[in-house]
Order: sequence, then C-alpha cells, then structure tokens
Amino acid sequence: MPPRREMVLNAFTMNCVGHINHGLWTHPRDRSCDYTRLDHWTGLARTLEAGLFDAVFIADIAGVYDVYGGGIDVTAREAVQLPVNEPTLLVPAMAAVTSGLGFGVTVNIAGEHPYTFARRLSTLDHLTSGRIGWNIVTGYLDSAARAVGLDGLAQHDTRYDRADDCLDLLYKLWEASWDTGAVRRDRAARVYADPAGIRAVHHAGPFYRSDGYHLAEPSPQRTPVLFQAGASGRGQRFAARHAECVFISAPDKETAQRTVRSLRREVEAAGREPGDVKILVGISVVVGDTAAQARDRLADYAAFASPEAGLAHFSAGSGIDLSRHGPDDPVGAGTGNAIQSNTQAASRLGLTKRDLLGQLALGGRYPLVVGDGPAVAAELDSWMDEGEVDGFNLTRTVVPECWEDFVRIAVPALQERGIHKRAYRPGTLRHRLFGRGDALPPGHAGAGVGAG
Amino acid sequence: MPPRREMVLNAFTMNCVGHINHGLWTHPRDRSCDYTRLDHWTGLARTLEAGLFDAVFIADIAGVYDVYGGGIDVTAREAVQLPVNEPTLLVPAMAAVTSGLGFGVTVNIAGEHPYTFARRLSTLDHLTSGRIGWNIVTGYLDSAARAVGLDGLAQHDTRYDRADDCLDLLYKLWEASWDTGAVRRDRAARVYADPAGIRAVHHAGPFYRSDGYHLAEPSPQRTPVLFQAGASGRGQRFAARHAECVFISAPDKETAQRTVRSLRREVEAAGREPGDVKILVGISVVVGDTAAQARDRLADYAAFASPEAGLAHFSAGSGIDLSRHGPDDPVGAGTGNAIQSNTQAASRLGLTKRDLLGQLALGGRYPLVVGDGPAVAAELDSWMDEGEVDGFNLTRTVVPECWEDFVRIAVPALQERGIHKRAYRPGTLRHRLFGRGDALPPGHAGAGVGAG
Repeated sequence: MPPRREMVLNAFTMNCVGHINHGLWTHPRDRSCDYTRLDHWTGLARTLEAGLFDAVFIADIAGVYDVYGGGIDVTAREAVQLPVNEPTLLVPAMAAVTSGLGFGVTVNIAGEHPYTFARRLSTLDHLTSGRIGWNIVTGYLDSAARAVGLDGLAQHDTRYDRADDCLDLLYKLWEASWDTGAVRRDRAARVYADPAGIRAVHHAGPFYRSDGYHLAEPSPQRTPVLFQAGASGRGQRFAARHAECVFISAPDKETAQRTVRSLRREVEAAGREPGDVKILVGISVVVGDTAAQARDRLADYAAFASPEAGLAHFSAGSGIDLSRHGPDDPVGAGTGNAIQSNTQAASRLGLTKRDLLGQLALGGRYPLVVGDGPAVAAELDSWMDEGEVDGFNLTRTVVPECWEDFVRIAVPALQERGIHKRAYRPGTLRHRLFGRGDALPPGHAGAGVGAG
Repeated sequence: MPPRREMVLNAFTMNCVGHINHGLWTHPRDRSCDYTRLDHWTGLARTLEAGLFDAVFIADIAGVYDVYGGGIDVTAREAVQLPVNEPTLLVPAMAAVTSGLGFGVTVNIAGEHPYTFARRLSTLDHLTSGRIGWNIVTGYLDSAARAVGLDGLAQHDTRYDRADDCLDLLYKLWEASWDTGAVRRDRAARVYADPAGIRAVHHAGPFYRSDGYHLAEPSPQRTPVLFQAGASGRGQRFAARHAECVFISAPDKETAQRTVRSLRREVEAAGREPGDVKILVGISVVVGDTAAQARDRLADYAAFASPEAGLAHFSAGSGIDLSRHGPDDPVGAGTGNAIQSNTQAASRLGLTKRDLLGQLALGGRYPLVVGDGPAVAAELDSWMDEGEVDGFNLTRTVVPECWEDFVRIAVPALQERGIHKRAYRPGTLRHRLFGRGDALPPGHAGAGVGAG
C-alpha cells in the first residue's frame, strides 16, 4: 500500500460574526461576537496550531449583501458578513503566538494600488517569517463598487484582465526589484544594502502604471503563497496561471472531481505541473466523541441556524432576490456575479427555493460531515480519494468549540488514518505545502520575471 | 504652586532600520536590523508600557529618498528609511501584549479609498480597545507619486484640499453610518444589529465619491485620535480644523513657542478651544546614570552616526541635492515639498552645508538633550514651560537600550518632578489624553456630522 497522502487543512473564517453557517452566533456557547477582541483570534491561532492546521484562511468582502429583500434587513439582523472588519490586521497578533500555522488572507485587488499593496504583503511575510498566503479576489458586489465611488462593477472578464495586470506588476516588485544578495547588513563596511542590487520597477500595463523601487527588502517567500477561488472559465484560466492553492466549492464528491480535473487540465495547459496547485474544498464538519453525540451536536446547532440568513447570502452571490420567490419557484439563473460553483450549479439545476432551504440546515450550503472521529476521517479521506481534492477549508459552526472538538477528536483519527501530519515541517508556508523551497517554482508566471 | 502639567510622551519610530538619527544601526549594540521580527516590536511595546508612554508613534513614507546624488546610493547603504515596511501591521501584535499603550500610525491618504481605509482604522480601534491614533499625511515625495502611476506629485495646497474631502467622508463613515444603539447582540431576539440604526453614507465631494454603509460597527473611539504634522500655512489650517495632536519640529524653545502660539491661534480661529489640541515636539534624548555617563554614551553613539545619511534625508525633504554643495555653500531655498518647519527655517536662515553637518552629530537634526535623569527632566520641563509644548515625540538612537535607559533613568526623574504620570488612566487613548470621554468633542469638524 502506498503511503497515504497528507491533507492540506485550513480553517476557514472571517473577521466578522456570521461567516458561512449563518445564525449560529445566537447559540449560547458561541463566541463569534468576540471577533473585535484580539484574544479571540490569538486563542483561535493557538488551537489551530495545536491541531497542526496548515493555515487559517480569512475571507473578506468589502461590500454588503443588499440583494435579498432589496436591502440589508436580514443581513444586519443576522450579521451576515456585516459588520465585517479588515482581515490582514489579525495576522500579526496570531503570528506572534504561533510558529507553524500559516495564514491565507483575502484582499481584493481593487482596494489599493499594487505598489503599496506589495509592501503590505511583504511586511506580512516578514513578520510571519514566511507564513503568509494571499487569496486573490476581484470582487463581485455592486455595493462594493458604489462604495468606492464607481458607478458599478466592471465586467467579469475585465476584472480578471485587471487582476492579471496587477499580478504582473506585483511579481516585478516582489521578485525583481531587490537581488537576493542586495541586503548585506554589514556594520563594519557601513552597507545595509548594496544599491547595485536594487532596481526600480517599470510597468505600463493596461490598468496599472508604476515606476519605483519596491519598498520592502526581500521577505522569506518574496511572493506570498497565492490562493484563488475563481470558478468561471476565465477564473480557472487565471488560477491556472497564478494560483498555488485553489479553493473550490462542491456539493458532492462527483462535482469536486469534475472541477478538480478541469482545473488540473487548465494548469497543464498553462505550462505548469498538475501538482503545482493544491485544490481545497470547502466543507463543514460536526464531530463528536460518538456518532450519537455528533448527531446531538448537529441537532443542537441546527436549532440556532438561520436558513433565511443563508438565503440572504445566496441572493447576494447569485444576484437573485429570493425573498420574492415562493417555496416551489425555481431559483433561476442569477443576474449577479456568482463566485461559487455550487451557486451556479444550483441555478443550472433548477433547484427550488424549498430545495435550497433544505440544504441550509446549518445556515450554509457547504457539504456537511457528521460523525465520530473515525467516521469523519474516513469521509474526508473519501473526499480526497473520490473527489480528488488535496485538502479542505473547514468552516466554523459554534466557535471556539468546533475548532476544539475537531482538534481533540478528528485530528487524532486523521493522523491514525495516515492523512494528517504529526508535526509541522520546518520552513515557510510554501515549503511546507510543496516541499520545494521558499520561492515560486520554475514555470510559475512570477518566477524569474525582470523588473520591467 | 499649581500642580505641574503632565507631559504627553510618545516614542517616535518607524518600521525600518534608519529613522531619524542615521547611521546608528552600525552600533554594535543596535538592534534596528531586527525590524522584520515581531518580537522586536512586542519587546518595544512592553518597554514603553513599563515607562507609561502615551503612545508609540510610527512614521511612514511610501517612496524613496532619491534626491541626494540623484539616486539611492547613500539611502540604500545607510538604510535611510529604505527598506521600509508597512506600519499598521505592527499595531495588533503590540496591542496584544499591552493594555495602556496607545498607537499613532502614519497612513498617507493617497494610498487607499477612504471607504476601505475607514474600515482599516475601525478594525484597529476595535482590536486595540480604543487605543488607535492616525497621523494624517498627504505625501511630499515625487518618487511616491511616480510609484503609484502618477506623473508627479499634486500641488501642495491641492493635497490638503483632497485631505479635507477625505476627512469629510471618513467622518460620515465613522460617526454617522451606525447609531450607537444599533448593535444589540440580542441572541434571544435574533438581532445582532438593528437595520433601522444603520444608514448608507452619501458623499460626492471634489475628490471622492461614496455610496455605502460603513462595514465596521462602531468602535470605542469611532474616529481615531487624529495626529497631524503640517507646518505650512495651509497645513496649519488643516491641523486647526482636524488635528487633536500636532507634531512639530523646532530647533529650539523659541521656535517651538512661536509655532505653538501660531497653531493655537489657528485652532481658535477654527472655532475650537486652544486646549483641544496637544502639541508635541520631536526631540532626541541621551540619558545616563550620571552626567558623565550620558556624555560618554553620546560620544559612543556619535562615533557610529552618519551625517551624510542625514544630508540624504534632508535633501529629500527639501528637494535640494546637497551632494553638489561645497561646505560653505548656503543650503538655499528648496524646490521640494518640505514638511518640517526646521527644514524651512534652515533654508530661510542661509545655513551652510557645514553648519548643517555640524547639527547632525547623531545623524539627525532634532534638538538633543543629554544628561542624567534630573537634568533631562529639567530640560524637558523647560521645553514645556518656555517652548509651551504639551509633550514630546522621542526619537530613537541605539535600540532597544535608548528606550530601556529612558524608562529606567528619565521616567522616575520626570515623575519626581511631577510632569509624568505614575499610572495609566483607564479608557481610550482619546480619554486618556483629554479626559473628556471617548468621542470627538463638540466643536470638532467631525463631531455630529450626518451621513451625507
């Protein structure tokens, strides 16, 4: 028997109250409301590191969900990703209390010019000693575009063209502005950095211009580990060119397998090795010491879930105001900029509102795994085997107990099964994920670029 | 005798190697090179809190100093604010290990749209439990403008007009988008926030447009404590309208007094109380257990200082390439966008390059106070008395020993003299500074604004 593959395991969260499984903030033991406190996050970081999670993946959105009912009533009452605080600011505090845990942080390219954004990410890579990943998003909410003074969202493909240009400039700054040997720190010679090893970047792309030196000296990984979640054809091509970890949504293993295979083909077509990209699926787990305890936990949680809040979230992602639908109306084709493949699948499959509500037992639509440790381990193994994914973005339910339960019960079972590490490997996040050093690998779009 | 006034005491630093007193990174005991490590900053935070500093004030620049010699040779070799990492990311880690220390963080308004920037600062205010201040800067480097794709820097007064518009939008987001009572966190009623208490901001100003809800719920201070350092007439008018703490540069107490009085007149002209603004002067201190030890320390430090690096810094601030000057050439009038009143004063006074070099004993041009604890305390007291300042931004020399020495030797002497607190007051940074609650006071431009 070949050695089992070790999974990539990320905790999926967000700097807000209601993330994926909506309504659970009302559970008496839930502490999501403490998201404004630093100790909420440092406690999470310590728990995840105890469970040898590869990374905490922090989602973000820079607009509000105002499609359902034509406003924010349900969004505000159920705290459906509103309020939502900035994600990168959680990382330094979590990094200070950990040494192995990685960080995948979502930042929309529309928020900031690549020149200053490059420094922000370099700073995070320095402060985390090379444990930073960036989830590249291009935005899909009209409300976010209006908030920053635009008339509305740019066309879907235009957003990816812009992201390509953004990445091309970022690679120049991260990879080419400072030679590896430029930083000497030589006190006797009075040379901190050799000016001959530092060069200005020149970029005149279709969307961005820049003419300047990168402000940060080379960080352990230079380019952060690149995460992406685009499900459209254009999104997959973007991922195939840039992403090192792709986050997919899939309601079942068959769908996951199709998406994975399609993505791996795109990666090969882009001239990279299929194994250059780790593909992670979003999943919800409720684990108990026994199967019965897990079922009881699920029933307890479900009593506090808000399927309607889940609808409000779905409405924003699909552009369809489901408040107006009768129970047996098909969900229909969205007018919005759906980002999740299962949102698109639901539209395609003629799912009714009643069907959809049935899927929202925990207020979210991610596949749900319920059982004792061995059962959860077997099911996740099967997602890797049949679904062909490399690992998981694990959603939160009732926090912090969902993380504590997973670490205490599921992690030993996963280790026993041979699909979860027993210690962190040394090195940067990229090296721990791929075992090939700190830098972007040859063949990646950013490897070996020049300054312009 | 009336009770002595307690000083406002900030540590002045930057996320880089060489900040003000250039060249000291080469001193064998200096640890500035560790600026990429989190424990460098958490250690600083603990030291400053032990000394009851009001805040750590983190400067920033988003361009490079490329005026001196027409390039970055000296800048790179002596690490004159290059490399420079992003400042806000230091705050969460430092906040996690302190409870009384405040944070004043420099962010250029040109870097990001006010809508997303507002959330970044609200997040910091949440995570620090109301200990955040923002130093508003508009930029003065052509290199920074070119780096973000502009042809060059906007005109000086235009930059302040833009900043006024930026602040007007920020006040709407921070002060008016969410009512104080909007956040209920009522689990039983399933109401996290009452949508009736949340409103979209509408802004169509000369520079910025926005139409959206603030993404963050109200933070302890809402608007962060506003710092500013503009020395020009337009800069002083801006400060008079917005600033709560103003950072001035002055080579001597007479100059400080003139600047302070001028600023207080502007504050009154803007309809505020003169005491609504705390005015802090930048200063360098070398303290010893005895006067002789302090003098020895100074001589030891000075041997590692780089006056030429100080010239490179001065050249960037004034726009004058001093590498071409002979020793007796007058420094001359700058072509650049000088931000420091003493830079301007030097130009006005016909200072020669030799004079200037003579002022750069520690590689920087801040007034220098040298002595044992009582002597340093007496001199700082005199700056408050004769210079009429409210406190100090204390530069770093050789770190961390400069902070440790100050806390161990100068702080007890300042307390003995009655001009430094013996414990932190409870509450937010604003309340600790002004004793009037967490919110902007009545009469401030941001107090009581509507949503648009």
